[in-house]
Amino acid sequence: VFSASDTWTALQRVRKARPLVHSIVNHVTMNTVANGLLALGASPVMARTAEEVADVVAIAAALVVNIGTPSPASAAAMKIAADRAAALGVPWVLDPVGAGAVAFRTDLALDLCRRSPTAIRGNGSEIMALAGGNVTREKGVDSAHGADEALAAARALAARCGAVVAVTGAVDHVTDGTRVVSIRNGDPMMARVTGVGCVGSALAAAFLAAGGLAPLDAVAAALLVLGVAGEAAAEDSPGPGTLNWRLMDALYCLDGDMLAARTRIG
Amino acid sequence: VFSASDTWTALQRVRKARPLVHSIVNHVTMNTVANGLLALGASPVMARTAEEVADVVAIAAALVVNIGTPSPASAAAMKIAADRAAALGVPWVLDPVGAGAVAFRTDLALDLCRRSPTAIRGNGSEIMALAGGNVTREKGVDSAHGADEALAAARALAARCGAVVAVTGAVDHVTDGTRVVSIRNGDPMMARVTGVGCVGSALAAAFLAAGGLAPLDAVAAALLVLGVAGEAAAEDSPGPGTLNWRLMDALYCLDGDMLAARTRIG
Amino acid sequence: VFSASDTWTALQRVRKARPLVHSIVNHVTMNTVANGLLALGASPVMARTAEEVADVVAIAAALVVNIGTPSPASAAAMKIAADRAAALGVPWVLDPVGAGAVAFRTDLALDLCRRSPTAIRGNGSEIMALAGGNVTREKGVDSAHGADEALAAARALAARCGAVVAVTGAVDHVTDGTRVVSIRNGDPMMARVTGVGCVGSALAAAFLAAGGLAPLDAVAAALLVLGVAGEAAAEDSPGPGTLNWRLMDALYCLDGDMLAARTRIG
Repeated sequence: VFSASDTWTALQRVRKARPLVHSIVNHVTMNTVANGLLALGASPVMARTAEEVADVVAIAAALVVNIGTPSPASAAAMKIAADRAAALGVPWVLDPVGAGAVAFRTDLALDLCRRSPTAIRGNGSEIMALAGGNVTREKGVDSAHGADEALAAARALAARCGAVVAVTGAVDHVTDGTRVVSIRNGDPMMARVTGVGCVGSALAAAFLAAGGLAPLDAVAAALLVLGVAGEAAAEDSPGPGTLNWRLMDALYCLDGDMLAARTRIG
Repeated sequence: VFSASDTWTALQRVRKARPLVHSIVNHVTMNTVANGLLALGASPVMARTAEEVADVVAIAAALVVNIGTPSPASAAAMKIAADRAAALGVPWVLDPVGAGAVAFRTDLALDLCRRSPTAIRGNGSEIMALAGGNVTREKGVDSAHGADEALAAARALAARCGAVVAVTGAVDHVTDGTRVVSIRNGDPMMARVTGVGCVGSALAAAFLAAGGLAPLDAVAAALLVLGVAGEAAAEDSPGPGTLNWRLMDALYCLDGDMLAARTRIG
Repeated sequence: VFSASDTWTALQRVRKARPLVHSIVNHVTMNTVANGLLALGASPVMARTAEEVADVVAIAAALVVNIGTPSPASAAAMKIAADRAAALGVPWVLDPVGAGAVAFRTDLALDLCRRSPTAIRGNGSEIMALAGGNVTREKGVDSAHGADEALAAARALAARCGAVVAVTGAVDHVTDGTRVVSIRNGDPMMARVTGVGCVGSALAAAFLAAGGLAPLDAVAAALLVLGVAGEAAAEDSPGPGTLNWRLMDALYCLDGDMLAARTRIG
């Protein structure tokens, strides 16, 4: 079963291996994602043009594809990178930002789902949209649907794609279609900083890269680390400006004691 | 007349409505703009490709178009978004970054001015360039001309475009061509953080989205909130690194008492 | 000989002149680079499309071309900007992010090397790749080779290109092929914040713009300022989140006394 102590072991493995995580991430949050990976102890490389993504996947230990702020050119690069990762056995994570809210993104996310992602992480609306449900579009890239409401959709999507699916929100649920790990860490103020969800997807790629855990547990470990770091960061933060940088410090400082003391799973 | 108490009422309205603000913003400052909107209490969505901007405008409560780091592709998307906003009655704000300094941007900004923006916010050089004046180009995207020097240009531009025009600097002037509101808040150190002006334009879109005020007063409310938050943030900041995150905290924490105590208008 | 006191004089010159630094910088770090230049006292303008870069170079005091996250469109703009700078005598700095790790970037960097850069700043792997050596690709945009290991390559590259070459790492070496200045400031935690190297290249452009020093000394001055600011920022930082903003404060506050007290060169 998933545990804080296995998460701590896996985090140490990430810090030792410093896995190269190829991160194709939207323009809004790519700086935050790069800093999150560096704070954790991984090494980001953020190539995003069709001319180089296949070469970068070939040297990477994992790939994350985040579809926010897409363009036809970046969508083409995402598909090349996903196919290359699947062909080489490089684990890869799909972050379907805005799926369900905008047709171009829904279509792109559905296309990428068919390219054998190892894991998919999204909010309630995004996961429900990919599972074929009708979702409220009026919140844009924020979710109109809670993670609990989306759990059934997450299970169905996991079964259909053969991927681990994480639906994150006040509670994070991670499932492979059968098992479910639920993480109750985090803080509502984290939603006031852009890119925290994107960081979660990238950390999932880093934990998948480091190996030693089943994919479900690796994704859950990443989200537990983010949730614990985020709630520790939020505790002394008067607002999201402080939370933003304290989150990076917490990812850097996080240790087994803090994980053991704060973990709320089940 | 414009007042701190109306601004406080409007800010509460923004926080309650959490308006979706479609933000087409330059690559340098889009992270800062997204965080500024989230800190205020609005919800940013930053789609910027021609394939999706019309769909996003249709679900948005307001649009901001910031022309910094333009490309032919993003310029095309900006025009589609602006036209869609005008057609649907979605209020939209133009931020003409670098107009007057670079011909490509001057032309793009002038084109967008003809697509019925609700408001235009720029520095002295940008507003003077759009009003048809000769401006010193040697400062790039920084202004070679103070806001006071540009007030007549702002009035003329407002009359010509039927838009509210805000020219910001040491003093911010907001005009519809007839009335003028002048805001004397803020701190010089704010100019040492990239994107603070861009945040102002995005907050203007959020206040326009929330309704309840005439457009002139909505734009002035946004700039007053930014000025008060910025000067509060600057007070204890040894440098612009601190100011950057304190500004986000201040936007999040700002309340009616702080507005009443600090507002300097007239 | 290069000295802390000359660096202080040059820094005062930058702050007085506020040089316009045209910065074509990758999408991950462009916000950090803009804030670094503003904190130092320079004025960034970050135009990156072929339609405007020639016009921007013409009003700029210096140019930095950073090839991270390249695309065919941005590569074309970089070449136009570099040629324009060389033609106008505007000093320009090449930052060959990821050269050696990805063929598209190696080719682009080699092409740009032939367009008369005033200076080139990279990590060990990047400089060794440009000098024609075989490098380990597995670290992506991080270096698999220390700066000391790359010093001979830096000398050879400087001689071949007629440029100042800086290879940065635990120690920073700056050479024109004959003289070498070695800077032993900085802190390992700086590598946990994305874009610190990119800031170094941009500060080099700002110091070249301000004049008064030989190019070798101007580049060394920029890296000394960054190293001293970075180690001062790191001292009280529990992690890279704090270091990130403290670095900006330190660039803003840095004075002759701090430079004199901390400088470790030779």
